[in-house]
Amino acid sequence: MLQVWALEGIGEVRAGADLASVVGDAIEASDDRVRDGDVVVVTSKIVSKAEGRFVVASDREDAITQETVRVVATRTSESGHTTRIVENRLGIVSAAAGVDASNTPDGTVLLLPVDPDASARALSAALRERFGVLVGVLVSDTLGRAWRDGQTDHAIGAGGVRVFEDLRGGVDAQGRPLVVTLPCVADELCAAADLVKGKAAGRPVAIVRGRPDLVGELDLPGARSIVRTGERDMFRLGADEAYAAGYAAGRAEAHTIEG
Amino acid sequence: MLQVWALEGIGEVRAGADLASVVGDAIEASDDRVRDGDVVVVTSKIVSKAEGRFVVASDREDAITQETVRVVATRTSESGHTTRIVENRLGIVSAAAGVDASNTPDGTVLLLPVDPDASARALSAALRERFGVLVGVLVSDTLGRAWRDGQTDHAIGAGGVRVFEDLRGGVDAQGRPLVVTLPCVADELCAAADLVKGKAAGRPVAIVRGRPDLVGELDLPGARSIVRTGERDMFRLGADEAYAAGYAAGRAEAHTIEG
Repeated sequence: MLQVWALEGIGEVRAGADLASVVGDAIEASDDRVRDGDVVVVTSKIVSKAEGRFVVASDREDAITQETVRVVATRTSESGHTTRIVENRLGIVSAAAGVDASNTPDGTVLLLPVDPDASARALSAALRERFGVLVGVLVSDTLGRAWRDGQTDHAIGAGGVRVFEDLRGGVDAQGRPLVVTLPCVADELCAAADLVKGKAAGRPVAIVRGRPDLVGELDLPGARSIVRTGERDMFRLGADEAYAAGYAAGRAEAHTIEG
Repeated sequence: MLQVWALEGIGEVRAGADLASVVGDAIEASDDRVRDGDVVVVTSKIVSKAEGRFVVASDREDAITQETVRVVATRTSESGHTTRIVENRLGIVSAAAGVDASNTPDGTVLLLPVDPDASARALSAALRERFGVLVGVLVSDTLGRAWRDGQTDHAIGAGGVRVFEDLRGGVDAQGRPLVVTLPCVADELCAAADLVKGKAAGRPVAIVRGRPDLVGELDLPGARSIVRTGERDMFRLGADEAYAAGYAAGRAEAHTIEG
């Protein structure tokens, strides 16, 4: 049995807030506190807010540019709005580099946390210390997906939680090797947490209980190990962008041969 | 509070099995049965098995070809194994068109269900009839993702469950419109269910309790409405494939101009 619930009573998180105290106090005030093996899923938004990652909204496009390592694809809608799908400095491919304009003070937008894995580890360490139990922490972000509409929550930071359940050495019910199976349990935990947190309700922290096997030492690999970039990424460029690059190269090559 | 648990006692599902009876009997035998608003998440594998979608394993590559509407990308590893990322007849982009070789009888592979939305609706209707409660059904499949390693479970069939929670008319805590938010709750429910089902444990059905607001009439849009194909898909072709197509077109264009 997996149980997932949101913590109540976390108000607006301000720049400079001690997130471990904010989350810890909300756990302390809840009926059930935390137990060994619980996973605490925190939206990146409150991590960013505590870190003071606010930028003036008029600088939003500049902020996206600064967070961008590489433009993957752009598209301009009929209404003239341009969406930039980019790889950000965390290796995450998403729209607008994760720069977020909802649930932020008027006139501001919010950048992603500086180092979500470090934030997750620090929060995990603090909660372990305060409550004397082995909990893991995930920092979640809402991401769109290639080939599918809508968004789901994914892990962008992990502290003391296994991000993959490695079944590649395992066997199926017929005893044959499970060769290609590497469930990204960190993303699944964040997805489950989103079902109770809600986007509009101001409940940015959820607890997932029931997979203590996924909780371990703080030096487990972080969520950075989930991202696939560079040569291994078959979709490192949008179809239109790759076609255009190929077209230009093809024309130049033809000129070189014939020139 | 969201609660997620796997049904026990579902044995091997054989071709021609009445899936509604198999799942219904397992629910009947469980402690808690089902209540209004529960979502029953069924792996596509047992739907396919009941439908007899077995193919001789030596025909695996042919089977993938037949399930393929369009090749998105291919890659050959150093060991010589070629992965085909394709759009299948359901509009789903995945490796090997969803043709599955794990947990199938020796010498066979398994195709995806013929019409997972129809299967989900039929199962939902049968369970509503048998237990007299309003349950929804999702058919899940394990899919890789662009830009992220590992796999998570996604919804490929939906019967009587809202696949999106449409917040686009809603407002954030500051009263500003939530313009781009369309959580794909069907995928999040399948991800949550995967955390209790496990790949190797032979527990192909899970119940998710706690989001009755997502359960509704059987004519709600199916999981087919999640897939994004064609012009709207910025990643309709892998980067290498799009580059090569552009390159060929650029060379041909240069020849046309100069020839």
